Amino acid sequence: MQISLSHHVITRKVVKIMAAENNERYLRGKEVLARVEQNPHGSILDSLASFSPDLERFVVEFGYADVFDREGLSDQSRQLITISALAALGNAAPQLEFHISGALNVGCSPEQIIETFIHVTIYAGFPAALNAVSVARKVFTERGIDVNLDTHSTEPAKRFEVGSSYLERVDGAGGEAVVKSLQDIAPDLGRYIVEYSFGDVYSRPGLSLWERELVSVSACSALGTCVPQLHVHINGFLNVGGTQDELVELMIQIAVYAGFPAALNAIASLRQVLAENNA
Amino acid sequence: MQISLSHHVITRKVVKIMAAENNERYLRGKEVLARVEQNPHGSILDSLASFSPDLERFVVEFGYADVFDREGLSDQSRQLITISALAALGNAAPQLEFHISGALNVGCSPEQIIETFIHVTIYAGFPAALNAVSVARKVFTERGIDVNLDTHSTEPAKRFEVGSSYLERVDGAGGEAVVKSLQDIAPDLGRYIVEYSFGDVYSRPGLSLWERELVSVSACSALGTCVPQLHVHINGFLNVGGTQDELVELMIQIAVYAGFPAALNAIASLRQVLAENNA
Amino acid sequence: MQISLSHHVITRKVVKIMAAENNERYLRGKEVLARVEQNPHGSILDSLASFSPDLERFVVEFGYADVFDREGLSDQSRQLITISALAALGNAAPQLEFHISGALNVGCSPEQIIETFIHVTIYAGFPAALNAVSVARKVFTERGIDVNLDTHSTEPAKRFEVGSSYLERVDGAGGEAVVKSLQDIAPDLGRYIVEYSFGDVYSRPGLSLWERELVSVSACSALGTCVPQLHVHINGFLNVGGTQDELVELMIQIAVYAGFPAALNAIASLRQVLAENNA
Repeated sequence: MQISLSHHVITRKVVKIMAAENNERYLRGKEVLARVEQNPHGSILDSLASFSPDLERFVVEFGYADVFDREGLSDQSRQLITISALAALGNAAPQLEFHISGALNVGCSPEQIIETFIHVTIYAGFPAALNAVSVARKVFTERGIDVNLDTHSTEPAKRFEVGSSYLERVDGAGGEAVVKSLQDIAPDLGRYIVEYSFGDVYSRPGLSLWERELVSVSACSALGTCVPQLHVHINGFLNVGGTQDELVELMIQIAVYAGFPAALNAIASLRQVLAENNA
Repeated sequence: MQISLSHHVITRKVVKIMAAENNERYLRGKEVLARVEQNPHGSILDSLASFSPDLERFVVEFGYADVFDREGLSDQSRQLITISALAALGNAAPQLEFHISGALNVGCSPEQIIETFIHVTIYAGFPAALNAVSVARKVFTERGIDVNLDTHSTEPAKRFEVGSSYLERVDGAGGEAVVKSLQDIAPDLGRYIVEYSFGDVYSRPGLSLWERELVSVSACSALGTCVPQLHVHINGFLNVGGTQDELVELMIQIAVYAGFPAALNAIASLRQVLAENNA
Repeated sequence: MQISLSHHVITRKVVKIMAAENNERYLRGKEVLARVEQNPHGSILDSLASFSPDLERFVVEFGYADVFDREGLSDQSRQLITISALAALGNAAPQLEFHISGALNVGCSPEQIIETFIHVTIYAGFPAALNAVSVARKVFTERGIDVNLDTHSTEPAKRFEVGSSYLERVDGAGGEAVVKSLQDIAPDLGRYIVEYSFGDVYSRPGLSLWERELVSVSACSALGTCVPQLHVHINGFLNVGGTQDELVELMIQIAVYAGFPAALNAIASLRQVLAENNA
């Protein structure tokens, strides 16, 4: 709290704090946020609170007390969802920076974070991933994290074979159907999906297949333009051990970072997948 | 006009000005732009005019003479539409800054502007809204506007009740149907829509329900990924006193800020809603 | 290579270079990238290589060896596709800057680049185009390119007539059907499409009609929210002399810059157009 704050700001903050004390959601949200933020000097939201106190309260209450504090996904998984969504959208660098730091704070490794962005190349292209990696590099540098990322490469001659194997494990018949459907019109695009997306990327260490499908569904849900692919990767997440409840948790969290329509449309895809699988 | 301008630039500008004098649309557009911009030192577009004069002319002629100067919506409403669309898209900070200033210039209050961005949390998520509020704060600070935003909060125990009431007023049977359809798969997401979107946000002062639906339709039209939600909020706008003509005006303006496809697809949704309502 | 590089970074780079020597795709990709980048002091990716070597390798191998090096489109056409996609998305300014420079390096003229962004106003709105032009201006200034863009304007009284003629040449019956379908609900929007998009923009010199449809299909594919318009402009590209093979090349390149889902969904639109045209 700086001495230069005007009287009305202090008054407003006091009123707000008094109101907040009656507000279990706000106080709980602040505790959850502190878990993610781990900033002994206050919160990044303090500045917002002095300008638009209600928006600050909504971030804390809805974003952290209602959503982040839910059971069903670990803090680490929630942060991977968030950084995948923000990286794919590509239009919220300040929040991506905050949540990369938050991911580290709740126990994600630097390797998992970079690996998430490498994975996002598949869904949002290289520019989105490159910009996310730049933000991560800035965060790591500021925190003095000396990342020495191991290199991993699939043997060139085996990329298609390895990719086919991962495609089958993740997407089952659905993935093979996508690639086959390209045979008559764009066979090389089908080959790149097998060789690059699955042979090069899915086969990498650094994220489990469950985590890869988690961030796939997150990116596709946030973008909102990948309906057929979201359908495939909802199935993929279920194929590699994920559950319906985890998908619902993921999609609820998407509401915070990409809005309710993105969440609702993802739930609609989930409903359709479940209906097809039950039929 | 700076003395350092090279000869050909001056020549080009003279030729252009001569052409413009024969061009009623350009001159009228400049007058409309001046109404929004209110800059006694020239226009932000002057620099563009010296680099890409035709693009500057298109902005003035199409954006201001053709579209902004149309009847059917007030200048204030048009600026709320624009800042909602740009906030939701999240990828045009310079233009968002210009149009926040423009909103103030045509008579929007600082409170309406911030409230529009709080409303946008619903459709585009918190990061988009937070970044828009940051831009607004910069504009307000530069203009010496000391905003003391009132706080308003819905009584915690009544959020669902208040939200249900607003949901019914705005979306009628359509909104209730969305929430009910989530009962079997993601009931908490349905509850959050009632409690947060309608209980916390729609119930706030600062924007009328007509204005809230105006900026809802604008955000959904601009994003282009919220087709079912656009459908619901076109009905919502009509439910709270808006007219078909106002929706057409809104969607024509979206062409300027998010492109013709966004406008055309929004018109297609409007046509579908009207057909359903007439049936 | 700076003297301050730590030992492990150097070691890692040596190991990587040794691996790369066994990797034909990487070496070929570097050569292709050098063609686009033309930087005698190294590559913009060198810094990435010291931080996330595998991501750097994927950019080089997939982006340049696999995709950019393909036959079927000239380097100039590929760069126009890329800058159109990145301008329309509006969320990757560093990559847009790199590829504007790359476009100049492979032989695109400054006029073609600015004209591409003027064309993008149609699909992504004016803010996206204005921001892309700002980036181009920065690149041109840094390279000492003194652009003196010719002005061109359609005679005011003939804008509708000229636009109708271009609409028919490009979109045939499809374009006219779109405009006619607006008669009952938003006739002025239909008129603006004819007058502005076709009368003002398509009629301009600076890009051929083939190039205009190339960048139209690129922008619509990358955005992913313009499905009906993508359909119209796939036909438009074929109408002005483009081929199915060129469209497949374009869409494969979209995978690099906007992700595989954007590419796959564009291919799905292409398949639908071909089926309709064969029927």
